[in-house]
Amino acid sequence: MLEQFLNHIDRFALCRREDPILLAVSGGVDSMAMLHLFTAAGFTVGVAHCNFQLRGKDSDGDEDFVAQACKTLNVPVFVHRFETEAYAWENGLSTQMAARELRYAWFDDLLEIHHYTALATGHHFDDSMETILLNITRGAATDGMAGIPVKNGRVIRPLLFATRAQVEKYAADHRIKWREDKSNLTDDYQRNFIRHKIIPQLKELNPSLETTWQNGIEKIQGELAILHDAFDAWCKNSITRTAEKIAIDKKALNHGPQVNAMLWRFIKTYGFNYEQTREIIHALNGQPGKKFLAPAFLLVVDRENIFITPRSEDWSEQHIGTVNGRHTLGPWRLSLEDTPPAVRGSDPREAVLDAAHLQFPLVWRKWRAGDFFHPLGMDHKKKLSDFFIDKKLSVADKETITVLESAGQIAWVVGHRIDDRFKVTPQTQHALRFVLTNHEEKPGV
Amino acid sequence: MLEQFLNHIDRFALCRREDPILLAVSGGVDSMAMLHLFTAAGFTVGVAHCNFQLRGKDSDGDEDFVAQACKTLNVPVFVHRFETEAYAWENGLSTQMAARELRYAWFDDLLEIHHYTALATGHHFDDSMETILLNITRGAATDGMAGIPVKNGRVIRPLLFATRAQVEKYAADHRIKWREDKSNLTDDYQRNFIRHKIIPQLKELNPSLETTWQNGIEKIQGELAILHDAFDAWCKNSITRTAEKIAIDKKALNHGPQVNAMLWRFIKTYGFNYEQTREIIHALNGQPGKKFLAPAFLLVVDRENIFITPRSEDWSEQHIGTVNGRHTLGPWRLSLEDTPPAVRGSDPREAVLDAAHLQFPLVWRKWRAGDFFHPLGMDHKKKLSDFFIDKKLSVADKETITVLESAGQIAWVVGHRIDDRFKVTPQTQHALRFVLTNHEEKPGV
Repeated sequence: MLEQFLNHIDRFALCRREDPILLAVSGGVDSMAMLHLFTAAGFTVGVAHCNFQLRGKDSDGDEDFVAQACKTLNVPVFVHRFETEAYAWENGLSTQMAARELRYAWFDDLLEIHHYTALATGHHFDDSMETILLNITRGAATDGMAGIPVKNGRVIRPLLFATRAQVEKYAADHRIKWREDKSNLTDDYQRNFIRHKIIPQLKELNPSLETTWQNGIEKIQGELAILHDAFDAWCKNSITRTAEKIAIDKKALNHGPQVNAMLWRFIKTYGFNYEQTREIIHALNGQPGKKFLAPAFLLVVDRENIFITPRSEDWSEQHIGTVNGRHTLGPWRLSLEDTPPAVRGSDPREAVLDAAHLQFPLVWRKWRAGDFFHPLGMDHKKKLSDFFIDKKLSVADKETITVLESAGQIAWVVGHRIDDRFKVTPQTQHALRFVLTNHEEKPGV
Repeated sequence: MLEQFLNHIDRFALCRREDPILLAVSGGVDSMAMLHLFTAAGFTVGVAHCNFQLRGKDSDGDEDFVAQACKTLNVPVFVHRFETEAYAWENGLSTQMAARELRYAWFDDLLEIHHYTALATGHHFDDSMETILLNITRGAATDGMAGIPVKNGRVIRPLLFATRAQVEKYAADHRIKWREDKSNLTDDYQRNFIRHKIIPQLKELNPSLETTWQNGIEKIQGELAILHDAFDAWCKNSITRTAEKIAIDKKALNHGPQVNAMLWRFIKTYGFNYEQTREIIHALNGQPGKKFLAPAFLLVVDRENIFITPRSEDWSEQHIGTVNGRHTLGPWRLSLEDTPPAVRGSDPREAVLDAAHLQFPLVWRKWRAGDFFHPLGMDHKKKLSDFFIDKKLSVADKETITVLESAGQIAWVVGHRIDDRFKVTPQTQHALRFVLTNHEEKPGV
């Protein structure tokens, strides 16, 4: 197992032997086995443990367990307690998604501050199989058939070569202690259904399912890399970007299913979907001028080119001077009203802020490069651009994001997250509720 | 449904309205619905029905049913009765594979003789989903994730847009008569397992599984076309073919998972597998001269190039003069002996021929372009090159195929199929048994 582990690291150039690596360790069997393997191989490692505080004593027990194990191994350990439920509530996220956002944001900070080269997670091949089957039920393209990537930016998966059974056997053989993961963070209904119902049946069809599928995935990952190269070349030849617009040469969209695939890959970044891609291809030889709308962009099929431009709503900065009222910016409408401090919505398009910290007139404007805020639940400031990267927002999403500013401080990244300094606390006496709607959407939707 | 059917045909340019189309009709609900759709749309069609004679009266009942339905619709019908069991036995094939080979060979002949533009089969989207899941359990690459192709040479699948449920509803709505398919040709254990156990569970995860997956597949098919283009370009730039050898420029194998995917796609045609591909890539920067063997080809990692050459066995024509004995040609060994006419092997590497028709000395040689024979079970001659295309043989397979000739007639395409004129009949008094082995294989394997 140790040999396979090192082979896997070398084969995919995950890291070098001298690189300091931060390990995400929950205390479950996968991450404890990974910790054991890294230390057995002589790597310099640190451990990051997230306490999501979702299971009271059990969560604290995990934290103590990981801290103790690291002490024994003489490995530095970082622990953070997250207000996961509150964060999920504020941001209209599932607990699962909230935990994911919180942990990756924190990991990023740790990598930065403590100069680790990479973050290693304990995903194994069973996780990858489950992901592919989930992707199938969601209509994924080739990317989705390649499973969990062995390397994605600074995140590496050094256990991806091994099955769950192999990891558990390794832990048993080496008497590695671990704690049963009762966190239910993995208690995602769909994933568990695939794990317990579908994978065992596929294994009835092929008892060596994992080995066979691993080979298949490796081929697909190679082919995906070819695809990315081809896409880059296509973009280079067919796309011209200027400050005002993007032009796609119609000659690059001549014929064949290739064209749908290329165009979709490109315009999905701007919020257009696959159905629209088909309609655009269909409109290529029709009367020029046909228009297609995504939330933040307009696409026009012109004579020689397809043009993509930001939608031309009025984006000029709004000054919000009175407490009650409605305001408009781009496609958005914002209403505000007094509210009892206890009331908090679960919708990210709603924010309840402490009125005592707000200084009128508030400024409501598009976000700008260089903007930063103190994300709710974090004790340090963060650039909006980094925040959006963590949230994996597309170009199209980012194009319509606005901020609410009070005396030069961002109080709310509108529709995304409030600033920690403006949150409602037990001391709050007077609160304001802000509600965002899109005036292009039908009422009630 | 009729409109969707025509849209699907136009969208994938399956055929034009004026093209005469041959429909493969079993009498089951899928093919009967297809026949109904084609006639309702005003196409000129003919029907081909295969009677595999596997279920006695039931098979004949299907044949009568299809013939009667075509008479009512005034559509020409072609019926052929196949000796499927005998053919499967002679060729060491499963009944399923035998039926497949026989039907496609016959369809090809019908297309040729009666000038049909295309052959349409009644595969629907459920067949495609099943195929993908089967492919996953077999370690397929991107090709395998794209499902059943809507068009493959002259074979078209005009029902691929529809689910099984939609086809059945159409048949019920239009009171189309059909016969329950008891043939068990589709009684492939694995496919049925997927149909009845796995797909229903995936539908629990996503009740609109078909629509979602259809979009996914369409994206993958587009991406696959991009991949094929990239592969063709790579071959053009990196591969040089001469009469003696194939050279792959090592500079085209620089780095990245792309390289594995490209090299594998190329060398698999010559009988090399994915494991070898990995080893070859690994050997690129080692000592030149490392050799890899496939059954018919030798691959050498040289200084600037990788060379692929046919393996240099002695392929000179052998004359077989005595009845009992052993002979060698290339990697092959052929033994022959007297045998009671009743004994027939089930292994394609064995042939039992009527001695009365054999004229000694027999000639055993490599096959040549221009060779033809009368395949067992067919009443006309066929070029070996076409026979190999029907059998989907790779370049590597074809490279080692030999024939056994008696007085200028091919009696056996060795290891593949005997000639109909040399088969054992109830009148046979004296038979000869030929057994082919590969002298590179270990005894007993």
